[in-house]
Amino acid sequence: MAQTVVLYCKAWGIRNIVISPGSRNAPLTIGFTEDPFFKCFSIVDERSAAFFAMGLSQQSKEGAVLVCTSGSALLNYYPGVAEAFYSDIPMVVISADRPGYKIDIGDGQTIRQPKVLESHVNYSAVLKQDVAHATTTIEKLQPSMITGAGIKRQQEGIQRYNEECIQEALRIAFNEQAPVHLNCPFEEPLYQTQASPDVWEPSGPFSVYRPQVPEELQAYADQWNSSAKKMVLVGSLSAGAVSQLLLDKLAEDPSVIVLTETTSNLSHPNFFPSIDSIVAPIEKSERKDELFRQLQPDILLTFGGMIVSKKIKAFLREYRPQHHWHLDQKKAYDTFFCLEHHFKQDPADFLRSFLPKTKKTESGYQPYWAAVKRRYEEKRQDYLSQIPFSDFKAFHSVVRNIPTNISLQLANSSTVRYSQLFDLPPSVRVYCNRGTSGIEGSTSTAVGAAFNADTPTVLITGDLSFLYDTNGLWNNYLRSDFRIIVMNNGGGGIFRILPGAEETRNFKTYFETTQELNLEHSCEMYGLQHDRATNESELDSLLQDFFTISEKPRLLEICTPRTLNNKILLAYFDFIS
Amino acid sequence: MAQTVVLYCKAWGIRNIVISPGSRNAPLTIGFTEDPFFKCFSIVDERSAAFFAMGLSQQSKEGAVLVCTSGSALLNYYPGVAEAFYSDIPMVVISADRPGYKIDIGDGQTIRQPKVLESHVNYSAVLKQDVAHATTTIEKLQPSMITGAGIKRQQEGIQRYNEECIQEALRIAFNEQAPVHLNCPFEEPLYQTQASPDVWEPSGPFSVYRPQVPEELQAYADQWNSSAKKMVLVGSLSAGAVSQLLLDKLAEDPSVIVLTETTSNLSHPNFFPSIDSIVAPIEKSERKDELFRQLQPDILLTFGGMIVSKKIKAFLREYRPQHHWHLDQKKAYDTFFCLEHHFKQDPADFLRSFLPKTKKTESGYQPYWAAVKRRYEEKRQDYLSQIPFSDFKAFHSVVRNIPTNISLQLANSSTVRYSQLFDLPPSVRVYCNRGTSGIEGSTSTAVGAAFNADTPTVLITGDLSFLYDTNGLWNNYLRSDFRIIVMNNGGGGIFRILPGAEETRNFKTYFETTQELNLEHSCEMYGLQHDRATNESELDSLLQDFFTISEKPRLLEICTPRTLNNKILLAYFDFIS
Repeated sequence: MAQTVVLYCKAWGIRNIVISPGSRNAPLTIGFTEDPFFKCFSIVDERSAAFFAMGLSQQSKEGAVLVCTSGSALLNYYPGVAEAFYSDIPMVVISADRPGYKIDIGDGQTIRQPKVLESHVNYSAVLKQDVAHATTTIEKLQPSMITGAGIKRQQEGIQRYNEECIQEALRIAFNEQAPVHLNCPFEEPLYQTQASPDVWEPSGPFSVYRPQVPEELQAYADQWNSSAKKMVLVGSLSAGAVSQLLLDKLAEDPSVIVLTETTSNLSHPNFFPSIDSIVAPIEKSERKDELFRQLQPDILLTFGGMIVSKKIKAFLREYRPQHHWHLDQKKAYDTFFCLEHHFKQDPADFLRSFLPKTKKTESGYQPYWAAVKRRYEEKRQDYLSQIPFSDFKAFHSVVRNIPTNISLQLANSSTVRYSQLFDLPPSVRVYCNRGTSGIEGSTSTAVGAAFNADTPTVLITGDLSFLYDTNGLWNNYLRSDFRIIVMNNGGGGIFRILPGAEETRNFKTYFETTQELNLEHSCEMYGLQHDRATNESELDSLLQDFFTISEKPRLLEICTPRTLNNKILLAYFDFIS
Repeated sequence: MAQTVVLYCKAWGIRNIVISPGSRNAPLTIGFTEDPFFKCFSIVDERSAAFFAMGLSQQSKEGAVLVCTSGSALLNYYPGVAEAFYSDIPMVVISADRPGYKIDIGDGQTIRQPKVLESHVNYSAVLKQDVAHATTTIEKLQPSMITGAGIKRQQEGIQRYNEECIQEALRIAFNEQAPVHLNCPFEEPLYQTQASPDVWEPSGPFSVYRPQVPEELQAYADQWNSSAKKMVLVGSLSAGAVSQLLLDKLAEDPSVIVLTETTSNLSHPNFFPSIDSIVAPIEKSERKDELFRQLQPDILLTFGGMIVSKKIKAFLREYRPQHHWHLDQKKAYDTFFCLEHHFKQDPADFLRSFLPKTKKTESGYQPYWAAVKRRYEEKRQDYLSQIPFSDFKAFHSVVRNIPTNISLQLANSSTVRYSQLFDLPPSVRVYCNRGTSGIEGSTSTAVGAAFNADTPTVLITGDLSFLYDTNGLWNNYLRSDFRIIVMNNGGGGIFRILPGAEETRNFKTYFETTQELNLEHSCEMYGLQHDRATNESELDSLLQDFFTISEKPRLLEICTPRTLNNKILLAYFDFIS
């Protein structure tokens, strides 16, 4: 059974195998590690392993396999699996298990594994043990089976069933870009290896054909052309997913405004990358309703994954467009409660067919908001020259110094929100675990994503996110060009920013959860060079050589004033209003 | 709804509330932290929080509540919840959630929370939002409800439903000694507090009556009295669960042998505490079958939780007793595939009724095995005087120096297995997460268990278990008398011990997962005093004052030779054979 699993993964071309130690999974571990086709990784903490695999799969398009032993090991995968589920990342979870008759009879490392991930995987199955192993416990057999022919027939049925399950799991993982779960019961002994696999060939196909659903677009194009206010809103998207030529065409239409999030990896001088800098001043304005009506589009075209900006969501839920169309091969969330049409197509494919049918429409829509943008950009510069050292100022310094052509991993949730306020170099590829927006695996994801990458990776994280996932550094896969920037504001700064979180009596302990740990010790523990900046000049000086070649991976801790940060951020929105 | 949850927890007397930071759970956090009845704890990492709560509940009998925000936070509880499920620990998981209509529409920190823990909780429910909050989104309302009377009627129904769910959850948590899950959807705003709760009284009862099932015992006693070979095998059990008078009666019957595990917290000079020291030599003997038949009981009486010893399980599965009776109010696992009767009674209550009906039976059973025990005890002393410094020797030193009247927390899995080989002082109360036997939460559990304890707590753990759960030290609840002993053998020593785990090419990386981290940095990070022993004299010297009063909690790292330990352990069993 283990051989079958291994050979199918190979047939599908999945190279990245993340293994956590255990005994029950020995047949799988031996199978994967003995075949040089696979690139195996050893990660002890299964929670970290799942996010590490997320990072690998996020970068490679080849998916990743997770292998763990029986018992609670599997449960530690769950946060990473849920992130993959909502981030549309193919991931194959393979858990070893005891045979069914050993469950709930008091054996160690034994839980009810089948279906524990059910709510957040697109497929799960329990494979069947080979007869030769199942008969170790001879009394479990029907007497009729103890003939040679009976065993052979039985084994053929098991083999067929297992192959169907594995093939279906892999097909779904890639076709639906989702996590799947195969649970594999193994009887002891677990370490007997065979020189070569029992002979058979995995039966394909070993790739998925994801059909586009072609649609008659003319009617939609007519609607588009007759509207003077079209908004394109893009959530998280892989870099290069849409060609610049298509983007240019959108950008040059005065009736179109394109709002991009940092994680959209799209850029054009005419786009609107700092959504909150547009929306927040309107929220505060006495002319709020009038301005929102002016911003409210007739047609809203969305693509990409999750939207970070809460402000744009709140605005569009209240001032709903007449038409909301979403582009995605797989799914369309009704984020604004007014989804009209889901084009089941790759966004680039759709735009390639659709945009030639459209024409520039005379409109004051883009020019008006472009003027607003120019204004807040100027004011942001003014503001930056006035404020003291803080998260806001530190982010600006970091973004200004970030090298071109790197991968940038952002943690949740202050980090990704701050990063939306500043313009990154267009060549920087941005990622963030926005599937579940959890803080538990940012470091592990970044380390995994960095490992196979062509360019260096920088992780920007907060102190709580960093501390939560220090186990992400507990492995042998940190590249020397890996960089971590920790915005250390002494706790969960996000809670000071969220509307309504006033300074209640217990705020510091139970919401902000302040901490004063010295991250230097963490760096020494896991072999990173540590530097700390506590003011602007230290920061600017450290940033000068922080990204240059080094022997060890490096961590830059930026300490900002805990109780000042939220005031400076909120005052920014006042200042630009 | 939050008020209702809080008031019911109070009515049931649950004081321990472990809160992880978040915004969605603000109504619960505010409710619990503002009432001085509760003892609230703030733990950022939800995985650690769940094990910390496990530790609190393990010690207090009052249960513990876990409170987390929406999204993947809840999933991080799962390993701790599964441990509680199999260790029969009452635990109330309360997760904040978004309202149902906000699920799967692209909002952040939003997953499919209902039923995610379903396989390992005894009850789960999704509470209903109060009408006043549900109507924030006015379009969700039926027009008929927008009358005052309609809203009131609706609210009364919701309140009744929520109270029934909460009451049922708490009843089951305590009656069935199990984890339960309440999922609580909250609409924004989340921080509005009311000066006093809406007036109502929680409706009881607020305690459970756990009826014993009285049985006619005479027939069983007759069987008992007519048998010359009775084995009593005790798994994990709270200290003091069975009175010494009852134990004495068992111990003094020559036809009875009582096999106790370290986690059984039972002791008597006539008991057999080192089960593997009895069974292993038989496995190796040429007279194996004869000796196992001699050990094979007619009647096997079991009580307590999970059995650690794999050897006793393998033996009893092969040499099954004619009768296997299990004592437990809640459940009986058919661990040896021959369970005949489950007495649904507390073990102490059963023994109090049963033992007076029994009489001593002439038998060579206990005397024969007592002689075996004396022999291996002598040989163990001989062996210890011959071997070099190693896990085996270090455990002996530690056990010999452990103070009386402390709580001892053991990690999985080498640690708990080694501890079975040596005799602890009877006043030491021993605990180990043997529900799922995972390595992920030993430190968190120990820190939680220690916090409210009357006596100091010592955790003995391995290097992998310790490194896995360093987040267990990331909180403000470490007592200065807390002690950690890390048996650092540079990796997962257990994998060298397990039968069949040969030195395959990839053994070090994927099974043993060797590591060379310096634990001193971890100690500096989290404020523990660190000491290291690398040989016997250093260890003996450090143990002299390791347990005395100190300003800071302390960690003693014992470095043993990685590749020698398994040989010394396996040679021990040869030596005593």
